[in-house]
Amino acid sequence: MRIAAFTHQGQPGAGIVSADGLSIQPVELAAHEKPLGAQSLIERLSRGDALPPLSAAIAIDQVTLTAPLPRPRRNIFCVGKNYYAHAREFAGSGFDSSAKSGGDVPAHPIIFTKVPECVVGPTDDIVIPKGVSEAIDYEVELAVVIGKGGKGITAARAMDHVWGYTIVNDVTARDWQARHQQWDMGKSFDTFCPMGPWLVSKDECDGNKVQVRCWVNGEIRQDANTADLIFNIPFLIETLSAGITLYPGDVIATGTPVGVGIGFKPPKYLVAGDVVKMEIEGIGVIENRLV
Amino acid sequence: MRIAAFTHQGQPGAGIVSADGLSIQPVELAAHEKPLGAQSLIERLSRGDALPPLSAAIAIDQVTLTAPLPRPRRNIFCVGKNYYAHAREFAGSGFDSSAKSGGDVPAHPIIFTKVPECVVGPTDDIVIPKGVSEAIDYEVELAVVIGKGGKGITAARAMDHVWGYTIVNDVTARDWQARHQQWDMGKSFDTFCPMGPWLVSKDECDGNKVQVRCWVNGEIRQDANTADLIFNIPFLIETLSAGITLYPGDVIATGTPVGVGIGFKPPKYLVAGDVVKMEIEGIGVIENRLV
Repeated sequence: MRIAAFTHQGQPGAGIVSADGLSIQPVELAAHEKPLGAQSLIERLSRGDALPPLSAAIAIDQVTLTAPLPRPRRNIFCVGKNYYAHAREFAGSGFDSSAKSGGDVPAHPIIFTKVPECVVGPTDDIVIPKGVSEAIDYEVELAVVIGKGGKGITAARAMDHVWGYTIVNDVTARDWQARHQQWDMGKSFDTFCPMGPWLVSKDECDGNKVQVRCWVNGEIRQDANTADLIFNIPFLIETLSAGITLYPGDVIATGTPVGVGIGFKPPKYLVAGDVVKMEIEGIGVIENRLV
Repeated sequence: MRIAAFTHQGQPGAGIVSADGLSIQPVELAAHEKPLGAQSLIERLSRGDALPPLSAAIAIDQVTLTAPLPRPRRNIFCVGKNYYAHAREFAGSGFDSSAKSGGDVPAHPIIFTKVPECVVGPTDDIVIPKGVSEAIDYEVELAVVIGKGGKGITAARAMDHVWGYTIVNDVTARDWQARHQQWDMGKSFDTFCPMGPWLVSKDECDGNKVQVRCWVNGEIRQDANTADLIFNIPFLIETLSAGITLYPGDVIATGTPVGVGIGFKPPKYLVAGDVVKMEIEGIGVIENRLV
């Protein structure tokens, strides 16, 4: 199942994407649920409830896709340096040379967050915060969407708590990330989390083994497989839920592979007009322009 | 004005605390607003709207005070190492010895977050996550509550965006904080953010110059003044809002002074049965037991 959120004739909604990807069947939602996209559907499905009634299909080119979770229920959990080659490029960039930070490969998951309000849609613009930072970098990531909530979830049972997946671009202001030590701020600027194009349920996508790719202006920059994560999805869920109760609709961005802008010498930061395209096998494509 | 949130006869509500502190006049709220405590009142007042009608006063001992913002609209922003003496004790504890982390005094604000769901009330228990961490520490902090939202707020105008203040205990699992490098996880365990006892509007409390104190089992541990913050409230708001839009009800915990458990040799971590009392001049007291 693929759940998309959209605006149609100026109104927000959510619905089920057809197998051929050409149309969406909207679900009937209460007014307060509509701006939250797939959130209430994930909650219902995770309780074992049926979906609300479906309306007549709309051609997908008649809607504008928004992020499937346009305003996640709390900050998005994100994982830092979770692919070996990326951890090494990050260390090699000089960003992160201290022994304290674990050198190149972390011994334990590094978890930071992005504010819910920085989420934008799969084709929305990413706004360079001029005068604040121009060291803007891209990071393609597989994002896990939690279905059934819980606490103290073991790795062995963790996949029971995954509803599905989407793509996020963990856009980052590298100067703020470094200068302020803790990363939340430089990761949370307005428009810094393109997400989409929709949610794909775990029965249609094996998030533990999908290819993750990113292009900037058509040049491939990142190309890796989630099978190479340092800390895999079950371990991340076990770690996060050890002390924190997880809820339906929580988003966990699993980290980005090698090939980000800061890894080049000199760094290849994004500038106005650049187009960042991201694709994850079995999910789809998001493409965002820098302005 | 002091706004408290409470449960009364099993139902959540919010209201205005009387000048003598002995009673509360509940405000009429919609059903969906009640579990969010003061949130909708802050939004209305920040728009310049009047308060909803007030009901008959209830004696304060007839209600149970909850956190004034029982479920903040997104993760709480928190500031790390924002008093000189605390920054030095933290460095001296061996937690944070790398040059990369700025040695003892940070050059720029360190911002991390706590999940909204770890907020508990001013007399609720703090649950030690047995088997997960027993290196549990207290941190008394003045918390700023944003009134009028905004972005690119200058320090000179920042106080126009403050609605008022409350107290938070930024409870921390020190082992998780150190091991996972980014602090959000070890700061976000369930029950790790006692808050209250109410919100006090800025006209009744000068958050830029209040005494902040913490006792553990009656022994004073922390005693400092917010006038000694490394980065003061206007500068914190300018920094946070440079790239991130702030909203009414956002909470910024301004950092804790010297005297936390990790600063002792050996560390004095909290154990079951301990009682942590925190007082901020002009606001009140919160007191929470470890279980």
